[in-house]
Amino acid sequence: MSPRVMRAMASPVLSHLDPEFLGLMDDLRAGLARVFCAPAGSLALAISGTGTSGMEAAVANLVQRGTRVLAIVSGYFGDRLAEMCARYGADVRRLDVEWGRAVDPDDVRKALETSAADIVCVVHAETSTGVLNPVEAVARIAHEGGALVVVDAVTSLGGMPLDVAGWDLDAVYSCSQKGLGAPSGLAPVCFAPRALAKRVTCRSFYFDLSLLEDYWVRRKYHHTMSSSLVYALAEAVAMVEEEGLAARWARHEGNHRAFVDGATRLGLSMLVPEAARLWTLNTVRVPAGVDDAAVRRHLLQRFNIEIGAGLGPLAGQIFRIGLMGHGSTPAHVALCLAALGDALGRGPHA
Amino acid sequence: MSPRVMRAMASPVLSHLDPEFLGLMDDLRAGLARVFCAPAGSLALAISGTGTSGMEAAVANLVQRGTRVLAIVSGYFGDRLAEMCARYGADVRRLDVEWGRAVDPDDVRKALETSAADIVCVVHAETSTGVLNPVEAVARIAHEGGALVVVDAVTSLGGMPLDVAGWDLDAVYSCSQKGLGAPSGLAPVCFAPRALAKRVTCRSFYFDLSLLEDYWVRRKYHHTMSSSLVYALAEAVAMVEEEGLAARWARHEGNHRAFVDGATRLGLSMLVPEAARLWTLNTVRVPAGVDDAAVRRHLLQRFNIEIGAGLGPLAGQIFRIGLMGHGSTPAHVALCLAALGDALGRGPHA
Repeated sequence: MSPRVMRAMASPVLSHLDPEFLGLMDDLRAGLARVFCAPAGSLALAISGTGTSGMEAAVANLVQRGTRVLAIVSGYFGDRLAEMCARYGADVRRLDVEWGRAVDPDDVRKALETSAADIVCVVHAETSTGVLNPVEAVARIAHEGGALVVVDAVTSLGGMPLDVAGWDLDAVYSCSQKGLGAPSGLAPVCFAPRALAKRVTCRSFYFDLSLLEDYWVRRKYHHTMSSSLVYALAEAVAMVEEEGLAARWARHEGNHRAFVDGATRLGLSMLVPEAARLWTLNTVRVPAGVDDAAVRRHLLQRFNIEIGAGLGPLAGQIFRIGLMGHGSTPAHVALCLAALGDALGRGPHA
Repeated sequence: MSPRVMRAMASPVLSHLDPEFLGLMDDLRAGLARVFCAPAGSLALAISGTGTSGMEAAVANLVQRGTRVLAIVSGYFGDRLAEMCARYGADVRRLDVEWGRAVDPDDVRKALETSAADIVCVVHAETSTGVLNPVEAVARIAHEGGALVVVDAVTSLGGMPLDVAGWDLDAVYSCSQKGLGAPSGLAPVCFAPRALAKRVTCRSFYFDLSLLEDYWVRRKYHHTMSSSLVYALAEAVAMVEEEGLAARWARHEGNHRAFVDGATRLGLSMLVPEAARLWTLNTVRVPAGVDDAAVRRHLLQRFNIEIGAGLGPLAGQIFRIGLMGHGSTPAHVALCLAALGDALGRGPHA
């Protein structure tokens, strides 16, 4: 988090129904719509919860008993999204993809030809593997078959190109603490007109989009938004817009490429083929014979750097290194590479 | 919010899986259990959402299709709790109570004699009316009939006596921003052993207590807690414990009584009979001929004081004046009374 966002968060608290606060919510809604590149007629707002609450809000308002879902599962969060749909009563069919690889749009087409779906779920940036899925192509294929597309943009929004209007996406959710650079605790969501028109009766009260719309748009009390978190997210969105989306994406790409170059010089290799790599989260193979937990501990204790471990089939196989939002800087790349080199006995300090 | 809580909130962000952060979560869990006066074997934790998310978490883990619920409805939040149970499939029977009055335990007994229930829902401190319901007596009667009792303690925890162990309550939820004095965004919940044993299969992923227990107790990732909000709530709970629960309750009672005395001197009358008044939220009748919206606007614009309006059948009939947590002080009471007097043309400045 930038000091500017931190200072905003610590501003004196306004009530959730204060006229000034309601104005701030209007501004935030408009800012989120712009950051999502949402088409006219979309509803963008923030759920009072983490990214997982955004996932559940998307599912809870579009999935009901018997909804046919094609769930593209190429990692931990794709799996979670499939489970969420099943909990809301969907008839879920999985399209499993090897962890570390992107889905092939042709496989989506074949799956839909075999059996139609009402909704196709896909994770844009799979946090567990570092893979970017071809969301635009998936959306086109889904729509050819008459399905809506629900997109997890938790690790892409604000860090990598995402264009809800241009790619014709239907429902997209994210989080506040990654590419946007705010603290966690709010989940931006965007429902485009087609998704708004296909809402189902929501079983949840907290995630009911009609009640949330009443609150955000028509000022009817639903819950007590955290003004502290709203200040912080609004400030973070303002910083995104001051930088400009294109410039911000380019910054993430440049720092990602610098990281990969440096990692390669350290003799490390990336899990994901170049074309499908995230710019926000780098997955590096753990070299043979290296204890990944010891490396992570070393980085945390000596350099105060926390990196993620591999999950599921990739446990012990990869490091997951996030460089995103305010944290995507040349200085962080350089420090992270130096620390990795130190931990592996391969760097200048070795 | 106290400056101390604000400063804690703006501390540098730790990752949600950082060992130091996990230690803080353990401390918070223990602190919340003490503030709830939870019996041994309880599970106390904070949901990543507002008080309404705490309500949904309590319901989602105890109510399923066909669960027989007796919902005591004496105001807006009792009504919301009944609706939440219905959304989760319960067979809901309402015991409606006049807004502004507490439920009579004998009526609960009669209702349960007429027709048994699996769960009795009751709001301890009804924010919409300023009424304290006799939760201890309700719990005793519920248990005689073999029912669990679910208690909304949103406007009582940290401000009025609440004793989960002593009163033998089963599931209790609250919020962070009222009696505890933290920012909103986390919902403390407490499940006592009987409720833990009667958990149902939870349809929600975000509110699934088994997954939350895995996260809080066994460190298995579920969602990305907002460390900023955890810092703030942990600091607020520390302040509650430094003050001492009994002293904190007495402070709220003393300031409440001072407010009522002053309001009476201004010629105002309270909605609620003395024995059932909340110490955290005062409901004052709008005098005949007074435009309540104009008074509220005057207070906000001239004194930067926001008070609540009446809801439902009490719209236009009452002012709802919160004096709780860090805000329950003699200075706030004095300022609020002076401002009310000014707005009504009855005070020393008139």
